Formats: sequence, structure tokens, C-alpha cells
Amino acid sequence: VDHISSFRKMSVYEKPQDRVLIMLSSGNLAISQAVKEHLSHTPKDDALTIWTARNLFEVAQLVGEAIRVVAARETEALKAAGVEFNINLLLGGQIAGESTRLFHIYAAGNFIEATDENCYFQIGEAKYGKPIIDRVIHAETPLMDAIKCVLVSFDSTMRSNISVGLPIDLTCYARDSFNLDRVHHITDSDSYFSQISQRWSEGLRGVFASLPDPDWEIAPDTRDSFSIPPP
Amino acid sequence: VDHISSFRKMSVYEKPQDRVLIMLSSGNLAISQAVKEHLSHTPKDDALTIWTARNLFEVAQLVGEAIRVVAARETEALKAAGVEFNINLLLGGQIAGESTRLFHIYAAGNFIEATDENCYFQIGEAKYGKPIIDRVIHAETPLMDAIKCVLVSFDSTMRSNISVGLPIDLTCYARDSFNLDRVHHITDSDSYFSQISQRWSEGLRGVFASLPDPDWEIAPDTRDSFSIPPP
Repeated sequence: VDHISSFRKMSVYEKPQDRVLIMLSSGNLAISQAVKEHLSHTPKDDALTIWTARNLFEVAQLVGEAIRVVAARETEALKAAGVEFNINLLLGGQIAGESTRLFHIYAAGNFIEATDENCYFQIGEAKYGKPIIDRVIHAETPLMDAIKCVLVSFDSTMRSNISVGLPIDLTCYARDSFNLDRVHHITDSDSYFSQISQRWSEGLRGVFASLPDPDWEIAPDTRDSFSIPPP
Repeated sequence: VDHISSFRKMSVYEKPQDRVLIMLSSGNLAISQAVKEHLSHTPKDDALTIWTARNLFEVAQLVGEAIRVVAARETEALKAAGVEFNINLLLGGQIAGESTRLFHIYAAGNFIEATDENCYFQIGEAKYGKPIIDRVIHAETPLMDAIKCVLVSFDSTMRSNISVGLPIDLTCYARDSFNLDRVHHITDSDSYFSQISQRWSEGLRGVFASLPDPDWEIAPDTRDSFSIPPP
């Protein structure tokens, strides 16, 4: 049995032993829902669908085409209302016959793929939570560390942008398993997330408190070298 | 003797015992230079200048007016060239007779003042480095901690945006001193900054490594509750 699991900003498409596709969206919700609706249509001819695409690149192409169909239909009316056609999608997962792949699909329907050197993507309110990811995540990072890192990253984002908040939908997929081994919906009653948040905060304060004071002396000659007398 | 110290993105205006003004700029460099040039003009009438303004609010008004003068002159030509009139300024310091004050002045020439609840401002590439400031900086934070926090914040920004880099110009002003007690130009040969950067990085890794693994179990009934069978 195939399964489509729907979250607010996460959709999971599963066909046991054949494919696991995970799609994350940011931007205009009406657009991302319209794109997902289009992807769920059964084509009249024998055109490919996300269930029959032979590899993840083809799925990314189908998603890009769906964005373009929605854009052709919606852009003019949105523009008249002063609304930008704004959508970003992440598509990750695995189709039998190839390894896991991850794509970032843009509003224009074009996309880029993650590489070993650039092994992650973020969409939405990304910057506040990026530094910890840059410090921790590499292509060889264990999945458990990646989970923790993503949660710490979200915690930072939620502290700096009050409009970002729980719940968080988290899915973890282990290569070649064709099975989602961790799907977790994190609400504000999640004791693990609270614990991570608190321990990270305390740990950061501890590291910060241990930093040495600057050893700079005020050298008057240095001061003078960048002082310009007024006219 | 009055002093005007000029850095790339920092200008310091000092009149001993009377005023210390520190201005930071981000955005279009030509615009911020034109604004500073305008501020340095001696008016023909007895209009206020940054040297005669009676309080920091008046200085912020003068800076805002200077932005508007430059905008009136430049905006059309910039627009024709597809360039936005983009400038953000931070103005902080103290004028004898009042306490220290801090303003964020926008491209429209309007401005807001920092309060005890919102005691800091950032301009430029601000988001990557904001989480650590949000965790550390309060109105009562000692100046030495504030210095360290700003350096850690810049370190995070430089790691996540390769277009941001050293040197950093740092000025620290202690209330009622009417004297800049720390002015430091941090280059890539600054051993203290290298030390802070390395110890912060190691400390973060240590805290991260100490975080517990999630205790979530995969409950099939939970899985089913958000699974929708395909059509």
C-alpha cells in the first residue's frame, strides 16, 4: 500500500521497497498546496508521476513542472493583488536503484541538488539557524547528530524570530531502508525538545562565560593613526 | 581638540567632555559616504550641526535630514540604474547632560531608539549572528561581555556568509567617560579574535556532543494518525 502523509509543511510519499519521497515547503501556502494537488493528479496519458518516475531527478522535474503549471495559472492574479509568486521546496528521499538524493526547487521550477560539499539545504527563515548547521553538519555526520543539530537550529530560529514556533515536523530517513525510521511531531509539550533547548542554552552560557577577556591595550599611537583632525 | 576618526563602516566624532558620537553604516557605500560628507558641512546660518546639537535625538534628526538630502539628489539616477536607495545607520554615544543613547536610522530618514527591553541594534548581514546576541545581551550586560558577544556574533556571521570578513572595527564607550576606552581594529592577525573563534567553536562542539539522544519511539498508531491512503 502506498502512503501519503501530510503535515503542515511536510509531505511524505511512500511506496514500500520502491520509494520514499519527502517534500518540505516554504513561501505561499496556497501555492504549495496547489503544487501538491497538481502532483496528485493521475495524468490521462502514460506520463510519469511521482509514483512512476525512475529516479529522484525526474521527480524534481515533475515538481518543477507542477510549479510552472500553477505559476501560469496564478501569477497574474497574484501580481494584481500585490502578492509575489513565492515558493521554495525541498525534495529528498530515495528511489530503488539509486542512492538518497536531495533537491532544492525554486519558484521558477528550476532546481539544484545537494552534493557532498554542500550537503544540506534550508528554506524559510533560514539564517538564524544556519551557523550551528555550518559547524556540525557534514556529509558524514551521523543521522542522530543531524537530528539534534536541526532541533538546536530551530531553537535558535524560534528565539530570534517570534513568528517561528512549534510544532516542528521531523522525518529521518536512513539510506537503503525504504522505511521512515523516525517521524516525529514536536509540540510544546515535547519534553525532549525542551531538554535540548535548555541544555543548549546553559551550555552556550557556560562556554561564553569561559571565554578570556581581550588583552588589547589602548596604544595612543595606534589611536592617532586613524584619527583625522577636523577641518 | 575635536576628533573625527574614520573607519570603513564606522565613524567616530569626539569633542572632549562634551560628546562622543559613533556612527555605523550598512548598505550602499556611496550613499553613506555622501551622508557623512553632508554632515561635515558647516551650515551658512546658525543651524545645528552634530557638534552643536543639544542631545543625541537632535543628532539622529540631523543624520535623518542628511539622508533625505542625499535621497532627493540621488534616488532618481539610482533608480534609473536599477539600484535601490539602501542605507542603514546606527548612531550611538553620549552628549553631556544626558545618558548614552542608541538610534537605528533608516533609508527614509526616520529612526527608532533602543530601550531597556530592546537594548541593541544590528545592521547589515544581521541574522546569522543574532541568536548569540539574543541569548547574552541585556541592558545590564557588562561591557566586557558585550565585546565578547559581538565578536562571537561576527565569527558566526563570517562562517555562514563568506562575503563577510575581517577586519572588524570595534569601539567601546563607557557611560559618562566621554572618552573611548576601547577602539580596536581586528585583522586576521589578531590573536585574541583567533582564540575566541577557536574556543567558541570547540566549546559549541563540546556542548553539542553532550546533548542526549531523543527518546522517541516510533508508535505505529501515531504514524497511522497522519497517514492518508492514496486515492
